[in-house]
Amino acid sequence: MEIIRVPKMMREITKNLKIKSKTIAFVPTMGALHEGHLSLIKRAKDENDITVVSIFVNPIQFAPGEDYEKYPRDIDKDCEKLKNIEIDYLFLPDVNSLYPNGYSTYINVENLSDKLCGKFRPNHFRGVATIVCKLFNIVNPNRAYFGQKDYQQTLIIKKMVEDLNIDVEIIVCPTIREKDGLAMSSRNSYLNEIERKSATVIYKCLKEGEKLLKAKINPSEVSERIQNILKKEPVIKEIQYAGVFDPFTLEELKELKDVCLIAIAVKIGETRLIDNLLVNL
Amino acid sequence: MEIIRVPKMMREITKNLKIKSKTIAFVPTMGALHEGHLSLIKRAKDENDITVVSIFVNPIQFAPGEDYEKYPRDIDKDCEKLKNIEIDYLFLPDVNSLYPNGYSTYINVENLSDKLCGKFRPNHFRGVATIVCKLFNIVNPNRAYFGQKDYQQTLIIKKMVEDLNIDVEIIVCPTIREKDGLAMSSRNSYLNEIERKSATVIYKCLKEGEKLLKAKINPSEVSERIQNILKKEPVIKEIQYAGVFDPFTLEELKELKDVCLIAIAVKIGETRLIDNLLVNL
Repeated sequence: MEIIRVPKMMREITKNLKIKSKTIAFVPTMGALHEGHLSLIKRAKDENDITVVSIFVNPIQFAPGEDYEKYPRDIDKDCEKLKNIEIDYLFLPDVNSLYPNGYSTYINVENLSDKLCGKFRPNHFRGVATIVCKLFNIVNPNRAYFGQKDYQQTLIIKKMVEDLNIDVEIIVCPTIREKDGLAMSSRNSYLNEIERKSATVIYKCLKEGEKLLKAKINPSEVSERIQNILKKEPVIKEIQYAGVFDPFTLEELKELKDVCLIAIAVKIGETRLIDNLLVNL
Repeated sequence: MEIIRVPKMMREITKNLKIKSKTIAFVPTMGALHEGHLSLIKRAKDENDITVVSIFVNPIQFAPGEDYEKYPRDIDKDCEKLKNIEIDYLFLPDVNSLYPNGYSTYINVENLSDKLCGKFRPNHFRGVATIVCKLFNIVNPNRAYFGQKDYQQTLIIKKMVEDLNIDVEIIVCPTIREKDGLAMSSRNSYLNEIERKSATVIYKCLKEGEKLLKAKINPSEVSERIQNILKKEPVIKEIQYAGVFDPFTLEELKELKDVCLIAIAVKIGETRLIDNLLVNL
């Protein structure tokens, strides 16, 4: 595994590999790698000649007061995991090389960015779209891999790629879960023991919602029942959203559709957790 | 010359040429080609293996009430000129292929886009940045050529390319002028005979401003003198801006710098004309 820190060097490497007709896989991450990330990387390796993973905690997708400073960073442990899984390149840029003084260009995917998480995280998806576009321009991959846990993010990235004619195939991989159902997330490390145990309620709600939808219960009622379960859990300090949504527009569903998205965002203590499930009817 | 209308076909063509290590030049235009465009194309041909010209009147850079509908379009004449000059590919997409229903991704280069023309053309540079990024992603050129007449546009595109790590070299070519100094522009065709004659005052102001700056006259006074000349010209219905600006920030200059930008935007009758001059001191 080679570690590349300079954007222009990263670009030259993949450019030369593409001239040799190698296919490039790209897995952008913010580090603190867990089994979810590793599952993306394994799939990326399986489907391509060369695998590039980036680790970059992107400041412009955090709002003031969010957890940019305390976001978990453990580059040594991450490197060990990446070496074990045998990737080709780790792209590890610093903040100044991607956002030098005077940086001022932003990409906005309208409509989708204002829904769900976008309501609670101002400019979050603008930051996500911008960094992903930048990284794509640097790494120039054939395929890029994202986890379904960040469903709205995958939808916005696919929309950006389509709208801006970016020549990258976006591949969304299943959410990886702990044994008790909690979706893997770097932010799970923030939870204390009690919070960690209670956090399983999120997945329970998703599965309960799935059961109800399959029983043809109306989406509005399903949303209400999910919220009632969450409200009974004392460690949940805030329910940001919890319900049944259109998987393409992210609007609240009033009637059943062929595919329904159940999505939840809650604060457990100070920790914001999200999860979702696509239900085929 | 081959005419390509489908974005994916255009992309495949240049992708294959790049694998063969051909250098691709790209000249994006809105058609109604004049000597200014042709000078860009000649330079593009000289410096690269393959030359791609696009003609696309980009709806999202026109505000409501501007001249999108009546913008001059003469594709037959344009094709003839391009065949004569012997380019390789004309990319001629239709509006629906670039902005299908539900299109929603926009690129904003903050700060620079609000200055000068940006004050009078809401969302204009957002539209410019977005279409140029799209076209770059489709054509994937090594170098792209723009005229200095649209100075602010060139600055914004260079900033976008730098900020988003786009792998294209931006080359800005000198403004081409009529014998009497009027900058070539597709919009000159809107002018009636009297307006056309009076329009030369713009270049006269630029040259007068240059003379004054070289005589070390303070920029604020130079701006005032230019505006006074323009005010005396009865066909000028509106002076949107006219003065001396910082060529990097586009802020009004209070003191002389090594390089000063004199820039003017006026309405002659219903026709909006812009021009500029860089003055090295």
